[in-house]
Amino acid sequence: MINLTDIRSKTVEAVKQAASIMVSGSFDIYEKQGATDIVTSSDLAVQHFLEKKLKQIIPESGFFCEEEGLRESEPEYIWIIDPIDGTTNYARGMSECCISVALARRGELCVGVVYNPSLDYTFSAVLGEGAELNGKKIHVSDKPFGSSLFCTALSLYKKEYAAICLDILTDVYDRCNDFRRFGSCAMELCYLAAGMCDLYFEMRVFPWDYAAACLILKEAGGVITELGGETLSLTQASPVIAANSSENHRVLTDIVNKYLKEIPYERRLI
Amino acid sequence: MINLTDIRSKTVEAVKQAASIMVSGSFDIYEKQGATDIVTSSDLAVQHFLEKKLKQIIPESGFFCEEEGLRESEPEYIWIIDPIDGTTNYARGMSECCISVALARRGELCVGVVYNPSLDYTFSAVLGEGAELNGKKIHVSDKPFGSSLFCTALSLYKKEYAAICLDILTDVYDRCNDFRRFGSCAMELCYLAAGMCDLYFEMRVFPWDYAAACLILKEAGGVITELGGETLSLTQASPVIAANSSENHRVLTDIVNKYLKEIPYERRLI
Repeated sequence: MINLTDIRSKTVEAVKQAASIMVSGSFDIYEKQGATDIVTSSDLAVQHFLEKKLKQIIPESGFFCEEEGLRESEPEYIWIIDPIDGTTNYARGMSECCISVALARRGELCVGVVYNPSLDYTFSAVLGEGAELNGKKIHVSDKPFGSSLFCTALSLYKKEYAAICLDILTDVYDRCNDFRRFGSCAMELCYLAAGMCDLYFEMRVFPWDYAAACLILKEAGGVITELGGETLSLTQASPVIAANSSENHRVLTDIVNKYLKEIPYERRLI
Repeated sequence: MINLTDIRSKTVEAVKQAASIMVSGSFDIYEKQGATDIVTSSDLAVQHFLEKKLKQIIPESGFFCEEEGLRESEPEYIWIIDPIDGTTNYARGMSECCISVALARRGELCVGVVYNPSLDYTFSAVLGEGAELNGKKIHVSDKPFGSSLFCTALSLYKKEYAAICLDILTDVYDRCNDFRRFGSCAMELCYLAAGMCDLYFEMRVFPWDYAAACLILKEAGGVITELGGETLSLTQASPVIAANSSENHRVLTDIVNKYLKEIPYERRLI
């Protein structure tokens, strides 16, 4: 029987080792689908290193990674990895980026680790055991909507949906305190988990962006769903609505649904 | 005769000492003009410490600070200080905040220091001697407009102008790569100076927010002005347009001017 707390410790250790690749210096940049969607040689090296290390932790596990899709056919345990979330920030030398590793057992998230090497922040969670930042328990804020900080983006890879995102930003901004756009989904959801921000919406993100942070946020008392309150998909491109409380999540969901009645894109992972 | 390089070194030392107050732990939060405009006890303590230290560096100097207006009547040297730029981030435990100290001689910026304690980033400049990050020369990027990252905000303290800012964001976003909203004017202008971002616009900011970073950006090869290309005011609330090149600055200025033909607010410092 696998001990998830032990798995979390070993995963943190592997992720911190992988981070040394991130910070070691030079890297090459490649375009995936135009200049907004890039990958660096560091992403690839971190992913390769993690696959090797994590396979040692659970030999029968499979992988589902940003830089390479699901390969094994339905193993019990699957690692969902974003080797670098916030690649543009990383490529430009900015600190808002991280390694994100989640473990799912039969489709249910059970371990999440998000590590930002510039800040030396390790966010982590084990299903049912709460969430931590650098070993200390974290919890979402108790801010009401009017005092909240809202993290969002403008559908970067599908700019044809930017106008809808701007309508949502306009409406939310009118009712909250301020907004942020740090440029890393995983970091923003972890900030929400730690009580530093309060609301989050993105039109279209991928399981590797949010899987680890989703568990961390839920274990910290937050609420995170798709458009209609559904549990987030771990296999498809998804809209993500998250908040520090059920009440704020309901208000944010109502605003989003005013402008976005259904998912307007194909949910393929590209 | 004052040696500005020497003044810079002493200012960096004073600012790093002051940062120990920022990171020392608990603080109180006070509202200035509603919940969006706050000050913490750390802001006040950092300012008090810096006034004492900087007065020792240039005994005949005056001060112009966020938490207390200009006090001496036109001394030759004036320190323009934001004890904590990005106070909301600081109060919420996020790392995008800094101490900003500029020195102006007869109204001309001659030394700028911006220090972020979480990242241990010291941005600094001396008039005519270039800009540095942690002792290494920095320079703006050579990104064209279409590949650029745009930092902006939505007129937080005067939300009646948010719609204009959203129009500008919409227009710029359509032509650039992506946008960021880190929540600290000084940090964003320094990222621009270091080639990490490329464009910046805010509708209404204050001299203490941008004075130090303005010199750092100019010394790193960037362009920063008011609406019509005027040198930034060091005494009044101002719109700020900044870019990595004259060409991108012209394009950004043209976009801003489509929606904002003149400064729509009183330029008082409150």
